[in-house]
Amino acid sequence: MSWLPTLITETPEEGFDLAIKLSRMAVKKTQPNDEIRQRLRPIYENDADSLTMVSHVVATNYQTVAAANNYWRK
Amino acid sequence: MSWLPTLITETPEEGFDLAIKLSRMAVKKTQPNDEIRQRLRPIYENDADSLTMVSHVVATNYQTVAAANNYWRK
Amino acid sequence: MSWLPTLITETPEEGFDLAIKLSRMAVKKTQPNDEIRQRLRPIYENDADSLTMVSHVVATNYQTVAAANNYWRK
Amino acid sequence: MSWLPTLITETPEEGFDLAIKLSRMAVKKTQPNDEIRQRLRPIYENDADSLTMVSHVVATNYQTVAAANNYWRK
Amino acid sequence: MSWLPTLITETPEEGFDLAIKLSRMAVKKTQPNDEIRQRLRPIYENDADSLTMVSHVVATNYQTVAAANNYWRK
Amino acid sequence: MSWLPTLITETPEEGFDLAIKLSRMAVKKTQPNDEIRQRLRPIYENDADSLTMVSHVVATNYQTVAAANNYWRK
Repeated sequence: MSWLPTLITETPEEGFDLAIKLSRMAVKKTQPNDEIRQRLRPIYENDADSLTMVSHVVATNYQTVAAANNYWRK
Repeated sequence: MSWLPTLITETPEEGFDLAIKLSRMAVKKTQPNDEIRQRLRPIYENDADSLTMVSHVVATNYQTVAAANNYWRK
Repeated sequence: MSWLPTLITETPEEGFDLAIKLSRMAVKKTQPNDEIRQRLRPIYENDADSLTMVSHVVATNYQTVAAANNYWRK
Repeated sequence: MSWLPTLITETPEEGFDLAIKLSRMAVKKTQPNDEIRQRLRPIYENDADSLTMVSHVVATNYQTVAAANNYWRK
Repeated sequence: MSWLPTLITETPEEGFDLAIKLSRMAVKKTQPNDEIRQRLRPIYENDADSLTMVSHVVATNYQTVAAANNYWRK
Repeated sequence: MSWLPTLITETPEEGFDLAIKLSRMAVKKTQPNDEIRQRLRPIYENDADSLTMVSHVVATNYQTVAAANNYWRK
């Protein structure tokens, strides 16, 4: 079972969640050790700039997901 | 009720506000604790580079929202 | 009166000014206090990397504005 | 044999792996020494912001790969 | 006379020079003082990461210029 | 003879090399002194984040080159 069978989602909000998933999967594939990622979590979760950086990655992935879904236009 | 029912907005200005919302929601979904986010706020709000970084994220999300709305062309 | 009634401009240069305006408005909406923004100004205005970061945000917004105007092609 | 014969992949997930490959190849072509890259690996693998930066590069490359594949729309 | 009468250039190389010009103009419009910009120049010109950041801005602007010129396809 | 006569390449791999070239040329045009660039090289070549930043610039330029080549679709 693929973790990413499709970029198509029902709604803009589900697409946003997928963008978050894509952002995290790139981290996971670079640092596959769950324990280490767990240890890093409180660091970036408590740093304003780190959170902004994460938001930038999500925004970049959301561009892809939104385009794939033709922006969920009716 | 979804926090993001659509990417379509009436005007370019409303679209800009939506881009800001998207930028903040990615932060909120990474750091869901309201108190911590509140504590981080004065840090990035008083740092020139932090504000520029935030503006970059908004610009990235605005690309998505503007494209979704076909740039509000008449 | 909206601060952003349209993304359409007469010329590429006016579009560039609009991109600068968008970049600043995202900062203003994150830090609405004029006095604080005024205090931060000399910091990023005198730092090479800060200015490059600002230029990056403008470039990102200019992509949006230029696309909206179909690149002002005749 | 080219390391990049095509941008076309069967699935969104394979496309994501290709985006990771593109991100790494740009590093490899800038720093071709395997030993040095191996030495740098534990540094960015254990730094939250470094991992976010890597994820941003992957997101940027994934935009390219996804567009090339017309977002794997059926 | 406008400093940016058009995004259209004869060749890809001229387009690249225009992308550099756009990158610098955003800096100039943020820091209009020639003397200060002159003073900052040796700082970013001798810093590897600063130069990479500049190159990123140029790349972003080149996306705009290249699209405007339909990639100079024959 | 132009250093950039065209954005069109035969293959995706050649396009990637062109993206690297574009990334380096923006640096060269900002810091034209070969000796200084040569001195900076070991700095960013041995820094994980610097290499990631370089890879980001290449990814941005590759978006342009890949679009110009219509993603080398057959």
